[in-house]
Amino acid sequence: MRQSKVFPKTKKEAPKEAESINHKLLVRAGYIDQLMAGSWTLLPLGWRVITKINQIIREEMNAIGGQEMLMPLLHPREIWGETGRWGSSKDSPLGAKEIMYQFKDIRGREFALSFTHEEIVMDLLRKNIKSYADLPLAVYHFSTKFRNEPRARSGILRAREFMMKDLYSAHTNEKDLMEFYNKAKGAYSKIFTRLGFDFKITEASGGVFTTNRTHEFQVLAKTGEDTIFYCDQCDWGQNKEIFNGKASGKCPKCKKGKITEAKAIEVGNIFPLGTWYAERMRVYYTDKAGMKKPVWFGSYGIGPTRVLGALVEVSHDKKGIIWNPVVSPFDVHLIELPGGDAKEIYEELTEAGVEVLWDDREAGAGEKFADADLIGIPVRLVVSDKSGDKIEWKRRASEKVELLSLGEVIKRR
Amino acid sequence: MRQSKVFPKTKKEAPKEAESINHKLLVRAGYIDQLMAGSWTLLPLGWRVITKINQIIREEMNAIGGQEMLMPLLHPREIWGETGRWGSSKDSPLGAKEIMYQFKDIRGREFALSFTHEEIVMDLLRKNIKSYADLPLAVYHFSTKFRNEPRARSGILRAREFMMKDLYSAHTNEKDLMEFYNKAKGAYSKIFTRLGFDFKITEASGGVFTTNRTHEFQVLAKTGEDTIFYCDQCDWGQNKEIFNGKASGKCPKCKKGKITEAKAIEVGNIFPLGTWYAERMRVYYTDKAGMKKPVWFGSYGIGPTRVLGALVEVSHDKKGIIWNPVVSPFDVHLIELPGGDAKEIYEELTEAGVEVLWDDREAGAGEKFADADLIGIPVRLVVSDKSGDKIEWKRRASEKVELLSLGEVIKRR
Repeated sequence: MRQSKVFPKTKKEAPKEAESINHKLLVRAGYIDQLMAGSWTLLPLGWRVITKINQIIREEMNAIGGQEMLMPLLHPREIWGETGRWGSSKDSPLGAKEIMYQFKDIRGREFALSFTHEEIVMDLLRKNIKSYADLPLAVYHFSTKFRNEPRARSGILRAREFMMKDLYSAHTNEKDLMEFYNKAKGAYSKIFTRLGFDFKITEASGGVFTTNRTHEFQVLAKTGEDTIFYCDQCDWGQNKEIFNGKASGKCPKCKKGKITEAKAIEVGNIFPLGTWYAERMRVYYTDKAGMKKPVWFGSYGIGPTRVLGALVEVSHDKKGIIWNPVVSPFDVHLIELPGGDAKEIYEELTEAGVEVLWDDREAGAGEKFADADLIGIPVRLVVSDKSGDKIEWKRRASEKVELLSLGEVIKRR
Repeated sequence: MRQSKVFPKTKKEAPKEAESINHKLLVRAGYIDQLMAGSWTLLPLGWRVITKINQIIREEMNAIGGQEMLMPLLHPREIWGETGRWGSSKDSPLGAKEIMYQFKDIRGREFALSFTHEEIVMDLLRKNIKSYADLPLAVYHFSTKFRNEPRARSGILRAREFMMKDLYSAHTNEKDLMEFYNKAKGAYSKIFTRLGFDFKITEASGGVFTTNRTHEFQVLAKTGEDTIFYCDQCDWGQNKEIFNGKASGKCPKCKKGKITEAKAIEVGNIFPLGTWYAERMRVYYTDKAGMKKPVWFGSYGIGPTRVLGALVEVSHDKKGIIWNPVVSPFDVHLIELPGGDAKEIYEELTEAGVEVLWDDREAGAGEKFADADLIGIPVRLVVSDKSGDKIEWKRRASEKVELLSLGEVIKRR
């Protein structure tokens, strides 16, 4: 794509109110734009990154048998009333009135905006599941969630309207649920590994649902809001709420490692919810003996827009963002300087399947290099009167410049 | 995909309240599920069709320079107040209070749900456009729209929550707007042609925005809610609201053809909105002479979920849906009967890039054929003790059965 056409242009200054790194860099580089506190437009560059994040998630959800679909965002009060989540948390352990957007329309009907989708998918299941032969199943969607956070902050990390991939699984028994739960845990690990995160899986409380632990996926980040504890030698980890030891103590699992305290950003969580929902919402299946039994249920969430913010928090320098190639909006940033002719190179790279952002603007080298560093595409190519019939090739994260032929550039992609 | 895993199973009966064909067939075949009146879950099969519809739209939007992004769904009252659309239609020509979902949150802030996005994109433009050099531009998104229709009806054709692709273009002058407007009209024609629709482009009123006409894309359908008039020989067409002649009269454009009256389903519309929005929302650019001028603006909408319903209304028979191959959830429906072994065929077809729904269920031939006709995949393959080393090949819309080798099946796809 020609950079002269990209909407919008980069900005010299970050918004005054911006405190977090992702807020400053994503806005300056033209990835996101704030409509109001906690509400963001994903601009064309940001949308390209989200599309790639989502595709990685989709591939791993499909690999464990997830079926993609799309559920509504406007929900009737009645369904949320069935589990007590319509109410206040003062009255019900799960009440969400304080941060759920709830309203009455001009015809007097009461609605909530999609705070999450457990109740909605349960309603779908009870209409469509009859017998054990209909189970197990796993469905998921990418959709919008609304949470009226008292204070929206940290750029796109804690928004009031955000994107969520939520998968839900239904089973005939606990063993089958837990087998799938472990598969989902593996799929999540693959996703965050593919995204290039240094992450830990931490145990969290099962709440009212289960005496089992749930799990959070936490990206290590100095700027993270969460505090976690993990073993420096095995896979043991706990979040702050349930941790009951002391940092630098001995790992309770392997008895060898040391417990390390760290700041982190939560990017995913998985819940073996058991039969709590099925019992309250009457979601039953008939077993082989003809008995009605409640469905075993799990839910599994990842926030792609939060992932976008976390990627920037952990991979940037003073000049701008440094994208992992798997989610970069383009593969290479091709910069045309006086004396260089980029058009043919642009066309041949595109032909070879390389996604190119071509800086075709009439601007000085300094401005172009600064914008390239800000936007953060992992490879920068320069053609100028100095490069001759070669191309200057440089990684965003390195200072080393090499002169390569077009064929070599295509190979290295 | 194995049919035994598809969620949910097909249904023998349509819902009692279902009146329209798309409602009955899409629910029975497992494409959509109703959460409440006017609100639908796109089930896995339905989501596959929507993904294909959206990809066709996306390709044509990109081809005219559209940049994909994603805007928020929850909008602050203040922005809608700037154009008067927050108010009632009794007080303002564009007031939408009657069908816009509006509410106040527990902190006293007032919001609307995304009724459309003109005001929101205008706010984005005024923050990011400075000079003529930033124009023209075209941005679009696929997102959710909410309209509190007094009566949701016709299945997925008139929902209260639905999907919309809306593109917005901004220009320095009317000539440039109208040139792009005609390009968009061409792109829309390509989209509806690719989708296999028999459609007409009809003129509609420009409303308060412009003395120019706007245009609607109308799919000819006996079950359509709209009435249109078109020339049987040239491209002249008008909707009912502006038509001022009589059916069977002479065409006012070519003076040769006859005016035909027909029922139709509106699937798209395009509006050259002029400077009406820019003037009210103060969206200005600086021209070459340094003068501030209002931006010329157009908007262009297609409803993918409505397209889904319209496709079923115009292509079905008594047994079920008949998909156009370009949007079918799968390319072929492979049916395994006693004596036939479909596993290897399934794998080889998948390997060859053919999308296969494999009916691996333990069910009789009658039930399998009935489900295949209901689901509507354009090609049915059968392997049984009768087919030997060949495969029975049959189009959904034809009764003719041929015996083909696997290689021939792959070629015909």
